Amino acid sequence: MIPKETGFRMRGEFSEHLGTVMIFPERPGSWPYGAQPALPAFRKIWEAITADEQLFLIVSPAMRDKAQSMVQDLERVTLLTIPQNDAWARDTAPTFVSAPGSIMGINWQFNAWGGDYDGLYTDYAEDDALAPALCEMLDIPVFDAHPFVLEGGSIHSDGNGTILVTESCLLSPGRNPSMTKDEIADMLCRCLGGSKVLWLPRGIYNDETNEHVDNVCAFLRPGEVVLAWTDDPSDPQYPLSCACLEYLESVTDAEGRRLTIHKLPIPAHPVCITQHDLDGFTFAEGEDTREVGERLAASYVNFYFTNHSVLLPQFGGDNAESDAQAVRLMQAWCPDRRIVPIPARELIVGGGNIHCLTQQIPAISCVR
Amino acid sequence: MIPKETGFRMRGEFSEHLGTVMIFPERPGSWPYGAQPALPAFRKIWEAITADEQLFLIVSPAMRDKAQSMVQDLERVTLLTIPQNDAWARDTAPTFVSAPGSIMGINWQFNAWGGDYDGLYTDYAEDDALAPALCEMLDIPVFDAHPFVLEGGSIHSDGNGTILVTESCLLSPGRNPSMTKDEIADMLCRCLGGSKVLWLPRGIYNDETNEHVDNVCAFLRPGEVVLAWTDDPSDPQYPLSCACLEYLESVTDAEGRRLTIHKLPIPAHPVCITQHDLDGFTFAEGEDTREVGERLAASYVNFYFTNHSVLLPQFGGDNAESDAQAVRLMQAWCPDRRIVPIPARELIVGGGNIHCLTQQIPAISCVR
Repeated sequence: MIPKETGFRMRGEFSEHLGTVMIFPERPGSWPYGAQPALPAFRKIWEAITADEQLFLIVSPAMRDKAQSMVQDLERVTLLTIPQNDAWARDTAPTFVSAPGSIMGINWQFNAWGGDYDGLYTDYAEDDALAPALCEMLDIPVFDAHPFVLEGGSIHSDGNGTILVTESCLLSPGRNPSMTKDEIADMLCRCLGGSKVLWLPRGIYNDETNEHVDNVCAFLRPGEVVLAWTDDPSDPQYPLSCACLEYLESVTDAEGRRLTIHKLPIPAHPVCITQHDLDGFTFAEGEDTREVGERLAASYVNFYFTNHSVLLPQFGGDNAESDAQAVRLMQAWCPDRRIVPIPARELIVGGGNIHCLTQQIPAISCVR
Repeated sequence: MIPKETGFRMRGEFSEHLGTVMIFPERPGSWPYGAQPALPAFRKIWEAITADEQLFLIVSPAMRDKAQSMVQDLERVTLLTIPQNDAWARDTAPTFVSAPGSIMGINWQFNAWGGDYDGLYTDYAEDDALAPALCEMLDIPVFDAHPFVLEGGSIHSDGNGTILVTESCLLSPGRNPSMTKDEIADMLCRCLGGSKVLWLPRGIYNDETNEHVDNVCAFLRPGEVVLAWTDDPSDPQYPLSCACLEYLESVTDAEGRRLTIHKLPIPAHPVCITQHDLDGFTFAEGEDTREVGERLAASYVNFYFTNHSVLLPQFGGDNAESDAQAVRLMQAWCPDRRIVPIPARELIVGGGNIHCLTQQIPAISCVR
């Protein structure tokens, strides 16, 4: 049963949620020093989500007690013990689609962002098994999309038929090399209830996900997107953002509308790995490593909508002014939402950001 | 907006659940010795529910840490801190009704089973405020039925239009004395999406809820009920059960069907309050008290359906044979469900049983 054929579609993240899925961080190759530097940011995210909606927090058996102690004073948290290889719920949890009176979780194949070709680690069997395990625990039916390889961070939906992706990621040889671009678009539309795929050419410079769309461009609402931007032609992000802008200005969405495009400047100063960060990692055999001075894919577009808020990355240090500007702009574009700044440097050190760590479950009332 | 007019109705409890609402026991006039004797039974109920579905466990601020420590090893538990006056979620949590793509919680007025007329305690303001507080935390819309007085334990629904109640409760002067029987039936049908109310004359002997239906009769599925029964003409329950049987044999349900009636014998030996029980209570000013030798309203019909199980009360002691018979009968009538025996003597000491302590939220997939 193909979701689209039975009326299912992926709602916009800005639509109402039943709750949010997250995963407790643990992987030593992603979270230096036993994740201690990152946990305060996780805690702030959990606080902001549970102020608005339910939080389903997945945790490995080994981390269960620690997670429990960190969330026990929060309302609306449900711990779910499921083994996994890392904390990127956006990419390993199911993508939820809904139809009047029903909800379904899509179980994409997961190969750690590129498998043998350029995957980031080799031990991803538990990540690949996470989506059906979660659906079973929440009693949500599963649509199995295997062997189609996809991560949730590589797609956005406007809820009205438009799916937003990047060519750099979806056409990467590490995902579905035997499929043509049209076949991939067709698969996306059938799984997500879409009618048109918009193909941004690129994402964020040095983004190890092959430039997931969720770090470069996101819907604020149907017909309106934010695009990670820089006005500095010497910045390696400049040609990537320009190519995306040019594309977005040239297309219409599934309803035939021109898009309103808001430019959201990236941090003014690169956010880079330090020797101290590096000393805290323990990499597994075959795992992608980091190096000192490596520029991280820091972008404010990796925000997350809860029911009433925007959880917005902040990078601190010499980016205080960029941080404040991002808050001001997002508040202006989302006047009905509370902007919750999240100190995110220790998250991007892990390789992603707030949006990568979260996955929304649409509200029942939003399944109409 | 009246629920029925917009397509909402109360599903049968035997239909699929999203989860179950319960409340952590605390009230000194209901739960002797700080609820310690009853907590093992609660724990067994929590274990059985979380094996099948989510558990939303309401707890007062004072009991939060204790509740946390008692459920921290269980999956799928969500603690929600909401003050309340007692643990009877069936009666104080909302009654959930659903329509394709939507769910709503009905906020009945609660007056502690009779208010000034014959209510069981006088400090029920937090109980009355519980339903909207829970709906707000779970982001579920509320239909406010005030000033109509009702407890969830006084109604059953077959999901297909038939509502089952007792005259002894719904026509008691402590509920809605200004309304006629027809007006009450109309109100029930409009709130619950029903089309026919079946009025059992009585409930269980000495049931202090004015004989709630959920202790005497329940749907196993549309067209099929269990009725608490005794063959002993000298038992005070005998005339009550006979009157119910006679009524049930004389009526048809909302779909015009005769009902299949299964007789479920009550415990062979009365379950009574002991001096030890009594020594453990602390009654508030104006609270209904207990006395030694008082017969409790023990009935196996106060079971609860989870998604795959029946949580069935067991009274122990000299009722071991009755207990085993109830398990055998329920297993025969519900061959697809696991029967989970729950030691319930310490629950009925509190004044109710498993069904009184639980309230189902219908599954999304069941909202079709």
